[in-house]
Amino acid sequence: DFDYALENDIKPAFGTADDVLASFLRGGLVNWGPDVGDILKIGQSLAMETSDPQSRGFVKALFTGARNTGKTFLAAKIAKDTEFPFVKVCTPENMVGFSETAKCQVLNKMFNDAYKSPLSVLIIDNLERLLDYTPIGPRFSNLVLQALDVLLNKKPPPGHRLLVLATSSVQDFLQEVDLTSCFSKVVRVRQLHNVDEIMSVAEQSEIFDEQAMTYIRHNLNKFDKIPTIGIKSLLEMLDFVRVSDQPPQTLVQELEALVLGF
Amino acid sequence: DFDYALENDIKPAFGTADDVLASFLRGGLVNWGPDVGDILKIGQSLAMETSDPQSRGFVKALFTGARNTGKTFLAAKIAKDTEFPFVKVCTPENMVGFSETAKCQVLNKMFNDAYKSPLSVLIIDNLERLLDYTPIGPRFSNLVLQALDVLLNKKPPPGHRLLVLATSSVQDFLQEVDLTSCFSKVVRVRQLHNVDEIMSVAEQSEIFDEQAMTYIRHNLNKFDKIPTIGIKSLLEMLDFVRVSDQPPQTLVQELEALVLGF
Amino acid sequence: DFDYALENDIKPAFGTADDVLASFLRGGLVNWGPDVGDILKIGQSLAMETSDPQSRGFVKALFTGARNTGKTFLAAKIAKDTEFPFVKVCTPENMVGFSETAKCQVLNKMFNDAYKSPLSVLIIDNLERLLDYTPIGPRFSNLVLQALDVLLNKKPPPGHRLLVLATSSVQDFLQEVDLTSCFSKVVRVRQLHNVDEIMSVAEQSEIFDEQAMTYIRHNLNKFDKIPTIGIKSLLEMLDFVRVSDQPPQTLVQELEALVLGF
Amino acid sequence: DFDYALENDIKPAFGTADDVLASFLRGGLVNWGPDVGDILKIGQSLAMETSDPQSRGFVKALFTGARNTGKTFLAAKIAKDTEFPFVKVCTPENMVGFSETAKCQVLNKMFNDAYKSPLSVLIIDNLERLLDYTPIGPRFSNLVLQALDVLLNKKPPPGHRLLVLATSSVQDFLQEVDLTSCFSKVVRVRQLHNVDEIMSVAEQSEIFDEQAMTYIRHNLNKFDKIPTIGIKSLLEMLDFVRVSDQPPQTLVQELEALVLGF
Amino acid sequence: DFDYALENDIKPAFGTADDVLASFLRGGLVNWGPDVGDILKIGQSLAMETSDPQSRGFVKALFTGARNTGKTFLAAKIAKDTEFPFVKVCTPENMVGFSETAKCQVLNKMFNDAYKSPLSVLIIDNLERLLDYTPIGPRFSNLVLQALDVLLNKKPPPGHRLLVLATSSVQDFLQEVDLTSCFSKVVRVRQLHNVDEIMSVAEQSEIFDEQAMTYIRHNLNKFDKIPTIGIKSLLEMLDFVRVSDQPPQTLVQELEALVLGF
Amino acid sequence: DFDYALENDIKPAFGTADDVLASFLRGGLVNWGPDVGDILKIGQSLAMETSDPQSRGFVKALFTGARNTGKTFLAAKIAKDTEFPFVKVCTPENMVGFSETAKCQVLNKMFNDAYKSPLSVLIIDNLERLLDYTPIGPRFSNLVLQALDVLLNKKPPPGHRLLVLATSSVQDFLQEVDLTSCFSKVVRVRQLHNVDEIMSVAEQSEIFDEQAMTYIRHNLNKFDKIPTIGIKSLLEMLDFVRVSDQPPQTLVQELEALVLGF
Ligand SMILES: Nc1ncnc2c1ncn2[C@@H]1O[C@H](COP(=O)(O)OP(=O)(O)OP(=O)(O)O)[C@@H](O)[C@H]1O
Ligand SMILES: Nc1ncnc2c1ncn2[C@@H]1O[C@H](COP(=O)(O)OP(=O)(O)OP(=O)(O)O)[C@@H](O)[C@H]1O
Ligand SMILES: Nc1ncnc2c1ncn2[C@@H]1O[C@H](COP(=O)(O)OP(=O)(O)OP(=O)(O)O)[C@@H](O)[C@H]1O
Ligand SMILES: Nc1ncnc2c1ncn2[C@@H]1O[C@H](COP(=O)(O)OP(=O)(O)OP(=O)(O)O)[C@@H](O)[C@H]1O
Ligand SMILES: Nc1ncnc2c1ncn2[C@@H]1O[C@H](COP(=O)(O)OP(=O)(O)OP(=O)(O)O)[C@@H](O)[C@H]1O
Ligand SMILES: Nc1ncnc2c1ncn2[C@@H]1O[C@H](COP(=O)(O)OP(=O)(O)OP(=O)(O)O)[C@@H](O)[C@H]1O
Ligand SMILES: [Mg+2]
Ligand SMILES: [Mg+2]
Ligand SMILES: [Mg+2]
Ligand SMILES: [Mg+2]
Ligand SMILES: [Mg+2]
Ligand SMILES: [Mg+2]
Repeated sequence: DFDYALENDIKPAFGTADDVLASFLRGGLVNWGPDVGDILKIGQSLAMETSDPQSRGFVKALFTGARNTGKTFLAAKIAKDTEFPFVKVCTPENMVGFSETAKCQVLNKMFNDAYKSPLSVLIIDNLERLLDYTPIGPRFSNLVLQALDVLLNKKPPPGHRLLVLATSSVQDFLQEVDLTSCFSKVVRVRQLHNVDEIMSVAEQSEIFDEQAMTYIRHNLNKFDKIPTIGIKSLLEMLDFVRVSDQPPQTLVQELEALVLGF
Repeated sequence: DFDYALENDIKPAFGTADDVLASFLRGGLVNWGPDVGDILKIGQSLAMETSDPQSRGFVKALFTGARNTGKTFLAAKIAKDTEFPFVKVCTPENMVGFSETAKCQVLNKMFNDAYKSPLSVLIIDNLERLLDYTPIGPRFSNLVLQALDVLLNKKPPPGHRLLVLATSSVQDFLQEVDLTSCFSKVVRVRQLHNVDEIMSVAEQSEIFDEQAMTYIRHNLNKFDKIPTIGIKSLLEMLDFVRVSDQPPQTLVQELEALVLGF
Repeated sequence: DFDYALENDIKPAFGTADDVLASFLRGGLVNWGPDVGDILKIGQSLAMETSDPQSRGFVKALFTGARNTGKTFLAAKIAKDTEFPFVKVCTPENMVGFSETAKCQVLNKMFNDAYKSPLSVLIIDNLERLLDYTPIGPRFSNLVLQALDVLLNKKPPPGHRLLVLATSSVQDFLQEVDLTSCFSKVVRVRQLHNVDEIMSVAEQSEIFDEQAMTYIRHNLNKFDKIPTIGIKSLLEMLDFVRVSDQPPQTLVQELEALVLGF
Repeated sequence: DFDYALENDIKPAFGTADDVLASFLRGGLVNWGPDVGDILKIGQSLAMETSDPQSRGFVKALFTGARNTGKTFLAAKIAKDTEFPFVKVCTPENMVGFSETAKCQVLNKMFNDAYKSPLSVLIIDNLERLLDYTPIGPRFSNLVLQALDVLLNKKPPPGHRLLVLATSSVQDFLQEVDLTSCFSKVVRVRQLHNVDEIMSVAEQSEIFDEQAMTYIRHNLNKFDKIPTIGIKSLLEMLDFVRVSDQPPQTLVQELEALVLGF
Repeated sequence: DFDYALENDIKPAFGTADDVLASFLRGGLVNWGPDVGDILKIGQSLAMETSDPQSRGFVKALFTGARNTGKTFLAAKIAKDTEFPFVKVCTPENMVGFSETAKCQVLNKMFNDAYKSPLSVLIIDNLERLLDYTPIGPRFSNLVLQALDVLLNKKPPPGHRLLVLATSSVQDFLQEVDLTSCFSKVVRVRQLHNVDEIMSVAEQSEIFDEQAMTYIRHNLNKFDKIPTIGIKSLLEMLDFVRVSDQPPQTLVQELEALVLGF
Repeated sequence: DFDYALENDIKPAFGTADDVLASFLRGGLVNWGPDVGDILKIGQSLAMETSDPQSRGFVKALFTGARNTGKTFLAAKIAKDTEFPFVKVCTPENMVGFSETAKCQVLNKMFNDAYKSPLSVLIIDNLERLLDYTPIGPRFSNLVLQALDVLLNKKPPPGHRLLVLATSSVQDFLQEVDLTSCFSKVVRVRQLHNVDEIMSVAEQSEIFDEQAMTYIRHNLNKFDKIPTIGIKSLLEMLDFVRVSDQPPQTLVQELEALVLGF
């Protein structure tokens, strides 16, 4: 557990906030539709509000959406673009197998550290994993939930300002446990959901020539239902397609399998 | 846990009762309607009853209402206005990740400390967080619940008088577990629920000129349903509105979103 | 927990049986109706039966009734009036945050201590708190329940006589877990339930002149339903009424609120 | 717990098998009906079977019946009458607050001790308390249940014979968890269930003269339903009746209350 | 627990595999019907298959049937008859009160020990007790279940052959948790279920003369339903019958009670 | 537990990845139908994709199918054929009785070790046992589930590539807890499901001459339903058949029993 790690001074492989941010941002941004720009702009406003001297200086936003839709990437991008002097990332990736108590201690420390700087941004990635949430039961760590609720409602000390950016793919659950009421802003990240958005990503992948693009669009238009897919899954699918013998056919097949439910 | 904190003499950042009270009162009072004055007056009577030599000198009041309605602020204000020689605050903000046992010890110590002064006021803020309550299950700390029930029913030692002010946003749950029967007075804190109350807060925010105010009132009157919103949420919304390009329009939009359910 | 307390020799503020009895009896007796005398007389008989040489000398009575009806007061009064050489009180007030095991140890010790005297009376106050009972679930300490059941069925050693007086406001639960079958006598303590009983307490409070009394009775008689209220709650209500501007009106209002369900 | 007791060499007040047997047998036998003799005779046969060289020498009997019917007394009487060289008693009275593991260790030790003698009788009193059974849930110690099942099925070492006498008032539960299938004989102990049986106990109590007896019988015969009551409860009731002003009337009242369900 | 036992070098009274086998086989075999021979023959085939060089050399058989049908005896007999150089017995009799972890360690060690010999047979007796199974809930040790599943699927090291013989009376449960799919062979052990089988055991008991036998058969044939009873229960019943005054009558009565459901 | 093993430097009997792989591959491949080749080919593509410099280099495949269908064998074969410089195997066989925390530590270490090589393949065998999954409840280790989810979503450090091959027979459960969404590819391993596939395995077993083969096929064709059976179970059945007196008849009987449900 956490204490063990502390005692033995075990450093996770790439632990600093900069490394984690870099890891979140690896792969780069693909502009698949207008939503991308809109969300980044909301991000700018939140940063502005945080530093506005007339405001209370404690702004909390939640990025929700299906799995693999790019929530973490967008939160990381916005955090980086704030250029606030202090950036901190709280991610379950560094807490595998931690006890509930250890997770609470990490969360508590994150907020306390953030309060040492007059202007900070704090990413809390993947709330459902932080909460050890599983839909069967449902089960989750009530201890971590309580800690999150309290910390998201505890004002920074006088003269300190904080922007919290959290991500999660289980918004219904967060609503049920009333955690959403702790956030002043909820930002929805959507899956790609029309042919143009998919074609635009396919084009930027530089796998297909013009004829192949025509073939793909033609076939997608014949589908009964438009495939919905997160940007991350689509990019992975294109990796698979790239090494195949017949890339355009394979892409169409894989998307069709998605529509038909595998 | 608590013992750990005790052993290592970890002091929470702003731990004294005065600091916590100040933090609760930061932001100031906005007089959004007659309820504000009424509640403060009830507060005065409770203080009077506590110190009345003919009374039993053990008065316990519960402030309930939806989230973000200003319960904590009002309890803190009343506590401060009593000018009793001893003020103590029990808040989950200083107990993140504490075990049930540690919380019971803190509660017990709070009451025992209060009993050292002949006339004390004790704020117990956010009962649901103290109880680690979550509606799923529901789950809660039965140990803390039992401790609260016992402590709220244990008479102060002879010659000692105590006023307890507790806050909570989950009155139904407290009723179910029969904790409300420990309080002699239940004070309800409401959300703002008519256009005049909202307009009054908007005016005091000094964001809008007269024309803007007319625009806002005109539009609010066209709503099918009157938005209900706690004073804290409304003040946060105004912070967001202030940095926007078109404050009056943004305020109307945000309130409309609230009515439509986000 | 208990061991901790033992090790560090922490003495609860007013721990001796005499102090606790005195605390239970503080406030004094108000003779609000015939039940009061009846119950005290039953108490005398139980004491007599305990010391009768032809009896088995192990008598166990349970005082049940709604919250705030004076159960603890009456049990304490009866215990005191026995003038048995050994009086012991087991109350959750001194066990806040104790573990189940610690509570069992306390209970066990109480009985063993009682068995050192040839003639003892043991008050076990507030069984539901001792059992950490809550209606949600329901949850309760099965370990303490088992200990209670065993101890209430274990005969005193030869030559020793014991009267046990227990109090509880959750009789249905005790019935369900079959704990009532351990008691030879169940004594019911009622709420006040007619206008005369309420008027009698109002009169003894010395707040109201004759005209006020007439006003109150006149108004109570107009109620659709007679308010039911425990003696403790009524005395607290009168404390509140005493500091108000218009005591008779306030009393009528508060009782009306009670009838209307708050 | 148990280890603690072992370490500190705490001896329960009256711990030897003889003392416990004596305590079980205190109060003496009242011959309230033919069942009493029948059960004692079955006891003799079980003893005979245990020591019969042609038998397997491992006999296990369960005494069941409602609470307060004299199960423990009868098992103790039979055990004593066997005059086997080794008698051991396993009773929850000496295990208040023991952990499940400690109880298993005690049980295990009891059997192992019994196996040191060539001919032993072992009383396991009050199985439901040993199992920490409560009907809510139901809850019980599965660890103790498993230990009991294994121990009741493990043959004594060659050359050793054992008679086990267990008592319980929750036969339905034991059936459900399949513990009854471990016993070769189940003996049912009934409540008194006709007027003659009750009159016979009343007579032996020597409280009533002939006229009183006639009065009682006359009134009992007028009851709609015959009261069912265990011998232990009836004897306790007579203790209460004895100190009353009008013993015959009080007895009739108490029995009537029983019929009417309190 | 197990560690405790290890540390203190506590040896269970008759712990070696030979002693346990002998204890299982004590009482001897009664040939009550054709099933007995059939099962023993299947046992021989399993042994043959285990040592056949062309087979995989890892054979796992499960003996199921109602309680008291002789499962353990038959598994022990087959194990003994294999004359494999290494025999090991895993029985709950030696693990009373063990923790789940300790049981897993024992199981693990049993298999590892078996793998030290090129040809071994391992009895795992009474799976339901090993699993701490109870039908209420149901409850069982998931840890032990997981360990069993893994160990029953882990191939012996090259050059080692193992025959596993497990017994259980809760086949439905094993099916539900998918443990039966780990066994290559399931052998069903039946209760006696016709008059001839019962008469054959009665005859071999040498209690009854010819006339008594006629009397018994005549009466059994008049029963509405044929009593079903395991061989172990029937032999115990005959022990009881033997010491009675009228053995034939007693046997008929006891069997009738069985049919009528006690 | 794990720490214990670490401290005492206990080495499981055949612990290196090579030994485990060899153990998984023991028994050899039987080409029972076209699926076998197809799956091996998909395996090649996954390896290719992992090392393709244009891909993200983090490929995760799940092999699912009924019990005993050869999932582990196929995953091991594919892993071996990649000839990646680093191969690691995570199998419950080496974690019998490990605590949840210990399992998480092993998993974490496995991934971290894999990240030390630029190109690795990691087998995670038998997810359901790793998760301590049982359908009753269902119960499973949420801690291990959370660890798996996080680790399967945490990108390898820059310059490192990883192919994960996991096996499981409980795909529905994995879907429910949303673990399948962590895999980019799901490979289904089927049972044999037509007569030709069974005949082909029978032939390769070299037990039957031509006439026997005709007899078997003739009889299988008469079945109402075609038996479905995993390759592993069929090979075990043939081991049993081989030592029988009449192999063809026995095979037909055993398959018929399978169809009739045992
Ligand atoms: N416009 C975009 N928005 C977000 N991600 C993008 C975009 N374009 C490309 N990406 C890539 O898509 C991936 C998004 O993955 P990310 O981990 O942020 O998804 P996620 O929604 O957080 O997934 P999870 O549900 O597993 O948490 C990144 O690797 C990123 O490089
Ligand atoms: N009349 C008022 N009553 C209460 N709060 C007011 C009032 N006017 C302004 N405020 C401001 O509103 C905020 C009320 O927040 P507070 O934390 O007391 O709400 P709360 O109901 O306790 O919230 P929570 O449900 O999260 O506990 C304070 O920051 C305070 O400055
Ligand atoms: N006749 C009476 N019987 C009982 N209590 C009385 C009576 N007259 C006055 N009192 C006062 O009423 C109060 C009764 O409180 P007490 O704590 O005994 O109630 P309770 O039923 O035990 O409450 P709880 O349900 O909280 O345990 C005491 O303070 C006592 O002074
Ligand atoms: N014939 C009798 N059989 C049994 N008990 C008798 C008989 N006559 C008198 N008694 C008295 O009745 C009492 C029986 O109590 P005992 O504790 O054996 O009842 P029990 O059924 O074990 O109660 P519990 O359900 O609490 O375990 C004893 O004190 C005994 O002296
Ligand atoms: N043919 C037989 N088969 C099995 N047991 C027999 C046979 N003949 C006699 N016995 C006797 O029956 C008894 C069978 O008991 P055993 O413990 O094997 O039953 P079991 O089915 O394992 O019981 P349990 O369900 O309690 O585990 C043994 O004592 C044995 O001596
Ligand atoms: N074509 C094949 N595919 C897979 N296994 C084969 C094949 N041919 C023969 N086998 C043999 O079948 C056995 C497959 O067993 P394996 O343990 O892989 O099954 P599994 O599906 O993982 O079982 P489980 O559900 O218990 O995990 C191996 O021993 C292997 O030698
Ligand atoms: Mg993410
Ligand atoms: Mg608050
Ligand atoms: Mg009380
Ligand atoms: Mg008893
Ligand atoms: Mg057996
Ligand atoms: Mg496998």
